[in-house]
Amino acid sequence: MSEIQLIEIKEEILSDNKNLADELRKKLKEEKTFVLNLMSSPGAGKTSLILSTIAKIAGALRIGVLEADIDSIVDSEKVASTGIQAVQLRTGGFCHLDAPMVIKGLDAFDLKALDLVIIENVGNLVCPAEFDTGAVKNAMILSVPEGDDKPLKYPLMFSICDVLLVNKIDYLSLSDFDMNEMKERVIKLNPDITIIEVSCKTGEGIEQWSSWLAREVKEFIG
Amino acid sequence: MSEIQLIEIKEEILSDNKNLADELRKKLKEEKTFVLNLMSSPGAGKTSLILSTIAKIAGALRIGVLEADIDSIVDSEKVASTGIQAVQLRTGGFCHLDAPMVIKGLDAFDLKALDLVIIENVGNLVCPAEFDTGAVKNAMILSVPEGDDKPLKYPLMFSICDVLLVNKIDYLSLSDFDMNEMKERVIKLNPDITIIEVSCKTGEGIEQWSSWLAREVKEFIG
Repeated sequence: MSEIQLIEIKEEILSDNKNLADELRKKLKEEKTFVLNLMSSPGAGKTSLILSTIAKIAGALRIGVLEADIDSIVDSEKVASTGIQAVQLRTGGFCHLDAPMVIKGLDAFDLKALDLVIIENVGNLVCPAEFDTGAVKNAMILSVPEGDDKPLKYPLMFSICDVLLVNKIDYLSLSDFDMNEMKERVIKLNPDITIIEVSCKTGEGIEQWSSWLAREVKEFIG
Repeated sequence: MSEIQLIEIKEEILSDNKNLADELRKKLKEEKTFVLNLMSSPGAGKTSLILSTIAKIAGALRIGVLEADIDSIVDSEKVASTGIQAVQLRTGGFCHLDAPMVIKGLDAFDLKALDLVIIENVGNLVCPAEFDTGAVKNAMILSVPEGDDKPLKYPLMFSICDVLLVNKIDYLSLSDFDMNEMKERVIKLNPDITIIEVSCKTGEGIEQWSSWLAREVKEFIG
């Protein structure tokens, strides 16, 4: 099977997937449940951000978490320990989530009883960007140690996200990360993106991020 | 198209790919050229490690670098600035390299004039682990800020590598990264792996890594 045939298959999958994703968003609007798709490299801080977010807004919003992992259940155990419902999708080698997988995962929740479901996508800056999950908004984390050149190297991910969290700003003192340069690169790709600097370790920026998220949820669920 | 059909296609591709990879390794043995496949998450330090390695062993070995990137050419520009031949493969959305792509990339080199070609794979801990590139050895980088739980979450990558470089050890003072715990997790997956702690920033460990690599190259090319 040649490279070109593989691309065709992928395009067919992508088109079917887009239709399912659009249907899911319609359903979420009816159910009044906001779904956030959170993406990043491995180790950028997705689980830590989810835990910080829960600590900040679980009093005001009814939250669920859909965890995707290739093999382990360590992240969903951490989330479940906060008392929040966590559902684990084992992707079994799949490098991304698509709409059918998310629909299957969301079936495990009582959506009418939830305002917000956060999806922790597979740690990967490439493939998850290509598959619409049906989420209402897309968020990504770039962590400072990954470097300020990532928008040049993974442009699609930065282009499709509504919000970029720049995490681990507590590492800035040890790093040559150029925040302004990085932001310029991102805004060139995606002028409408919201960029928030955070540190899940020190708590800096979590208030601003949680307010952004709560506002988006309320706007969607009315 | 259902999820199961996608898996079947993938397995067919994987089997064709494995045959091509085995053929490439035979050819490399005849040409007396060692190929190293270097993998990691985005921003773990692949390009920095390649630059440090070139600085250390380019006097003793004739080196080429095959760079894979989805879109940009920033890494190959950095390598080319050292005077080493760099070839850029634009993967155009593909999240990994496979044997046909590597064979195509290696065609751009005069292999008889090279002892070592280092492949910088796409920054991704998932997909590259599934595709045999035809390289003689597989290396991966885990950087300290990514966290010590990565072997639990991306077990295949840790299982298929011959050597693990633990990079950015200069960040250890700011981190709760547990080196012993991480190593135990890796050795449980892959008892034969060589683990070397490095910092491309301070140069720590680069001597040990370069010696390991030079020894492997000499053993292969005779």
